[in-house]
Amino acid sequence: MSVTSAPRGKMVNAFDPATATSLTPESRKLVERRSALLGPAYRLFYKDPVEVARASGVLLYDSQGNEYLDAYNNVVSVGHCHPRVVEAITRQAQTICTHTRYIQKGILDFAEDLLGTFDGPARHAMFTCTGSEANDLAVRMAKHQTGHQGIIITDEAYHGNSELTAGFSPSLGPYSPLGAFVRRVPAPDSYRLPPEKLGEWMAAKVSEQIVDLQRRGAGVACFIADSMFSSDGIFTHPTDLLKPVIEVVHKAGGLFIADEVQSGFGRSGEKLWGYQRHGITPDIITMGKPMGNGYPVAATVMLPEIVEKFGRDNRYFNTFGGNTVAMAAAQAVLNIIRDEKLVENSLRVGKVIRDGFEALAKTYPQIGDIRGSGLYIGIEMVKDRTTKEPDAAAAAALVNGLRARRVLISATGAAANTLKIRPPLVFTAAHADRLLTEAAAVLETL
Amino acid sequence: MSVTSAPRGKMVNAFDPATATSLTPESRKLVERRSALLGPAYRLFYKDPVEVARASGVLLYDSQGNEYLDAYNNVVSVGHCHPRVVEAITRQAQTICTHTRYIQKGILDFAEDLLGTFDGPARHAMFTCTGSEANDLAVRMAKHQTGHQGIIITDEAYHGNSELTAGFSPSLGPYSPLGAFVRRVPAPDSYRLPPEKLGEWMAAKVSEQIVDLQRRGAGVACFIADSMFSSDGIFTHPTDLLKPVIEVVHKAGGLFIADEVQSGFGRSGEKLWGYQRHGITPDIITMGKPMGNGYPVAATVMLPEIVEKFGRDNRYFNTFGGNTVAMAAAQAVLNIIRDEKLVENSLRVGKVIRDGFEALAKTYPQIGDIRGSGLYIGIEMVKDRTTKEPDAAAAAALVNGLRARRVLISATGAAANTLKIRPPLVFTAAHADRLLTEAAAVLETL
Repeated sequence: MSVTSAPRGKMVNAFDPATATSLTPESRKLVERRSALLGPAYRLFYKDPVEVARASGVLLYDSQGNEYLDAYNNVVSVGHCHPRVVEAITRQAQTICTHTRYIQKGILDFAEDLLGTFDGPARHAMFTCTGSEANDLAVRMAKHQTGHQGIIITDEAYHGNSELTAGFSPSLGPYSPLGAFVRRVPAPDSYRLPPEKLGEWMAAKVSEQIVDLQRRGAGVACFIADSMFSSDGIFTHPTDLLKPVIEVVHKAGGLFIADEVQSGFGRSGEKLWGYQRHGITPDIITMGKPMGNGYPVAATVMLPEIVEKFGRDNRYFNTFGGNTVAMAAAQAVLNIIRDEKLVENSLRVGKVIRDGFEALAKTYPQIGDIRGSGLYIGIEMVKDRTTKEPDAAAAAALVNGLRARRVLISATGAAANTLKIRPPLVFTAAHADRLLTEAAAVLETL
Repeated sequence: MSVTSAPRGKMVNAFDPATATSLTPESRKLVERRSALLGPAYRLFYKDPVEVARASGVLLYDSQGNEYLDAYNNVVSVGHCHPRVVEAITRQAQTICTHTRYIQKGILDFAEDLLGTFDGPARHAMFTCTGSEANDLAVRMAKHQTGHQGIIITDEAYHGNSELTAGFSPSLGPYSPLGAFVRRVPAPDSYRLPPEKLGEWMAAKVSEQIVDLQRRGAGVACFIADSMFSSDGIFTHPTDLLKPVIEVVHKAGGLFIADEVQSGFGRSGEKLWGYQRHGITPDIITMGKPMGNGYPVAATVMLPEIVEKFGRDNRYFNTFGGNTVAMAAAQAVLNIIRDEKLVENSLRVGKVIRDGFEALAKTYPQIGDIRGSGLYIGIEMVKDRTTKEPDAAAAAALVNGLRARRVLISATGAAANTLKIRPPLVFTAAHADRLLTEAAAVLETL
């Protein structure tokens, strides 16, 4: 391998070239070629990385024709290679692909449709290419608008890969630099903390950080969170906890940014947007991953008063952001979510999966907690149900055992012990059965 | 209009809603709808904004069927809606669209092809979605690798829209915040400064900034420049000036980042990459805009030792960056540039345009200077050839006069007095004639 230094810090479910023994000669050759061409900052999934060549719906195939059940990928939310999205991209790419400094109707029609999905006051939509760009823009706006510098996040948050957003993404590991005025609060661990008054508990933690930021003259520009706390370990309940947190942030002159990159576009099964489960009104909403079913498109949506000063002092132009093809892809996805009733499907099939794990938990004591909303599910593996001691080895064994049985999931959380199950929203009850059957087979071997 | 505050600061060739009088009722309605939906940070081009509905080659059409000659858009570098790019995107989108954490051959084949276009030592390629992301990553890497904080740029540089990159993009205007350790040097204004020893002159300016950064304990992480100094006014010559600049940067432990978003992929007509005209070896090379002919794809390419520490301490994952469809689009573009000999075409047709303006300059004294390389051309408008006093009004009159005659260009530079002519690389001598004929007609009215 041409990687000269071993990576420091952890990544959940990362392939480690140093301990790879099971690779086929062909895979080893591809992995070595990859390392020589792409360098040491790229990572692969799984102990035995998966090679993929084609896909359809919730199925992936390698170049030998082996089939994998995709219970992980949330980008291709309406299903791999959905023909309506492919058709929309093709038709628009044949017609015109250009930027937002010309007048075009498509972006206005889509913006109007998208903005109609948020409850409450009128908003503006600004388009970027990635969730990282959407969060970077949201926080720039929050800082410019409030005149404050502080950013409050949860302990294992992930919000992006730009310098600004990586600086408030501690889940990137202990050697990835955090920003000077970034402050962390514990995630609302509903498995270990008493559920009653979890919101007040979290609000108190946020208040402490606000006081600290104010003493340093920075103040709080924003609290930014994904309402399902994905990289902290997937905490989907209770849903009354963000309200008191936002109150203390607003009182200190800060804004609340709802990062819907993970929780948006129907993933929760209950609402189109994750924040709506908490009955709150964010100042800024960001979205990305599933928005174009793989076409790079993302957005920042804000109350008009939030962008007034920013818009006077700055212009924002993103060469590809909001281009005609991106808007056509995003419009197709939104139409499909409605036409195929995917929010409803997410709710229904998510419950099938969680019920299945509840049944498995009767036999396998390593399953400590089952959380989730719709098709975003976290299964926490523990060494002991009384002490709730995390069992990262059991989680890794399940992730890699399922991969060996050609079912793809991953893991998450500070202790890397929570299975992350997050399939495309077109996952059916039959797919859920297959996932559960294979999971039972792996659990049996632990 | 729902814009409550007038924009502060300037943008060259921006539509100003406050002074718009010539808009048709339909255009006014679309502009107002746009403002209500997209908010105040978006800008349109031209006094009378252009509405576009379809495009082909170097021609754009509005929804009434009026034809516009595109002498401006460098993203659709191989021509609007090139069928080979559309076909590559469609085929790959039908097959699989997924990310870099699975093994895939397409990204390796493209990376190998791309890396083969750089002279000198072996490099790694990392893929992002936008040039902003590529520059953000490059500078994060330069800071992490050198342990320094300082970033040196030219006075009117533009390098991106993230917090980090906007922080070293002073051309965004006086109210867009610059980073604390960002330092500016004057652009190599070949029209006003003596051409001999321009490199030494610029190196001395950079040295002054390095000394200042060192006194503040920041040091110099990098000097980043587009080798055609696009937003400073398009200074394509002399080509011996970057070498001495880079020497002083290297001596201080900093890196040189060649921003090829504008100058790359054959734009200069002389080489595939702009930096190659200067006979130098950058530490990091970034690219974007034309890379996928409109599909969002960009890259950061670096010497292996530059990413060693960064790769050990950080991982870099970009959900859409380097995805299968992005790689297919980028591969198609690189193939077309070679197959259709577009670098050679850029050189040939660029000369036709510059020669044409040289001829016009004999009649019209407002043309002060004609610069350029290949199909990147700057025409500087002045009030007086002796004093060289910039004439922004003449440039604006030409840009808007050409727009009225359905030929699209723009303007650039600190004084907004330099015409920016930068058509798709498939522009022919006949298109050049049409541009020159219309330019002569507008010049006659000034």
